[in-house]
Amino acid sequence: MNDIELGAATNVIEAAEAKAEEIDVPMCIAVVDRGANLVAFHRMDGAMLASVDIAQGKAYTAVGLRMPTDELAAEAQPGESLFGVEATNDGRIVVFGGGFPLRSDGEIVGGIGVSGGVVDEDMAVAEAGVEAFEEE
Amino acid sequence: MNDIELGAATNVIEAAEAKAEEIDVPMCIAVVDRGANLVAFHRMDGAMLASVDIAQGKAYTAVGLRMPTDELAAEAQPGESLFGVEATNDGRIVVFGGGFPLRSDGEIVGGIGVSGGVVDEDMAVAEAGVEAFEEE
Amino acid sequence: MNDIELGAATNVIEAAEAKAEEIDVPMCIAVVDRGANLVAFHRMDGAMLASVDIAQGKAYTAVGLRMPTDELAAEAQPGESLFGVEATNDGRIVVFGGGFPLRSDGEIVGGIGVSGGVVDEDMAVAEAGVEAFEEE
Amino acid sequence: MNDIELGAATNVIEAAEAKAEEIDVPMCIAVVDRGANLVAFHRMDGAMLASVDIAQGKAYTAVGLRMPTDELAAEAQPGESLFGVEATNDGRIVVFGGGFPLRSDGEIVGGIGVSGGVVDEDMAVAEAGVEAFEEE
Repeated sequence: MNDIELGAATNVIEAAEAKAEEIDVPMCIAVVDRGANLVAFHRMDGAMLASVDIAQGKAYTAVGLRMPTDELAAEAQPGESLFGVEATNDGRIVVFGGGFPLRSDGEIVGGIGVSGGVVDEDMAVAEAGVEAFEEE
Repeated sequence: MNDIELGAATNVIEAAEAKAEEIDVPMCIAVVDRGANLVAFHRMDGAMLASVDIAQGKAYTAVGLRMPTDELAAEAQPGESLFGVEATNDGRIVVFGGGFPLRSDGEIVGGIGVSGGVVDEDMAVAEAGVEAFEEE
Repeated sequence: MNDIELGAATNVIEAAEAKAEEIDVPMCIAVVDRGANLVAFHRMDGAMLASVDIAQGKAYTAVGLRMPTDELAAEAQPGESLFGVEATNDGRIVVFGGGFPLRSDGEIVGGIGVSGGVVDEDMAVAEAGVEAFEEE
Repeated sequence: MNDIELGAATNVIEAAEAKAEEIDVPMCIAVVDRGANLVAFHRMDGAMLASVDIAQGKAYTAVGLRMPTDELAAEAQPGESLFGVEATNDGRIVVFGGGFPLRSDGEIVGGIGVSGGVVDEDMAVAEAGVEAFEEE
């Protein structure tokens, strides 16, 4: 697959929304392509305004640094190797969980970012999106 | 209606996408709420990357200045009263057609912005979204 | 109430200013609406220049993340779940005390942000504004 | 006078608001000091969201370039000496009318910026603020 298509992105978002409804936390959900450019974004009714930016930042980060954002959290702590990374890339790097790369045949073809709840909730919703993508 | 909901926003986007497919031009389509914050965004397969930003800017502008962006185009020309307005609001003001306010009971509750084709095409696609919103 | 009005916002600011005068610390005080857009701002004579931005950021944060900014402080520490959140949203997120949501009938309709003293002073002044709003 | 004080700034804003009410156009009104830093800002109920930024930009511009923004409009046209100036200073320069310096004993001590109507309306409201300041 050359790049993530809109149809795949909205499927990912729908799967994430279903999980968000299940845990009853309104979320912002963003999907970006392999160029880290936005493909689709949904803000569920009642989701926090600051999450509009954070969800997109997590998706950007997952592609831009090729890792889940929760793994980046460890590296971004004081004294660790990437301390301060969140200030780069015009502040689009987010260093806490809720962003994951989307892979096809082992290759990163896009990313998902979720924001709206506590970090564990964001991660669970994003993972539901990742699973839907991998099952396709 | 207090604010535009995600369901209404995705209906608007779907109607716009149907028009974009009809004229065979891939588009970026953004819907914002009355506070000019993003509710939903879709980039159709093949749409230009710069349109990701332009579509969001048009939706922002339609709410922020309470007018269709094509009406702003005339006022923003050299010698006209709002020449230079596109540099305000951190560059989010777009001064050509493709952005429209979304009204409910005569009041602006959100906005749509479309980018991807020539301005007439962007406007036609955005207007299809506006019509779908008003029919609800 | 649909949104916070200018009259309510200036009442909030006046109550906060009265508290700031009582403790003799000049403050910057900002009030935003439910969309996190600025409604009113006052810089008291002698207030620090950097507080112009910080006060607005605190008000933005209280609405954008739906919590008092002093509660966010704990979550934003190294090793905690939101470490690094202050770099999101173009640096408008402030992770120390002095920002509070403004509620009407339990719903967030705006926010207040105060900066100029030590954090405890900022919080006391902001809380005076919150109380004035809730008494209306 | 060393700098414009909050009391003077709110008097300026009140005079401008009275004019805005007279012509029945809700406005955003900003006052900055001689350092071009914000002193006070009011968004009247119903004023456009994009005017939050434009009003502040006009006040900044009037102090930063030491001229009414409507005079700058002429110089910013294609072929004129300051063409393109609106892109400088992070986009805070506004090149249409509605911003004026505030003078005390002939010296610029601050600025007012007004946005919300057509340019002639913005200018009339800002001038009401200037007059109130000069009468003090």
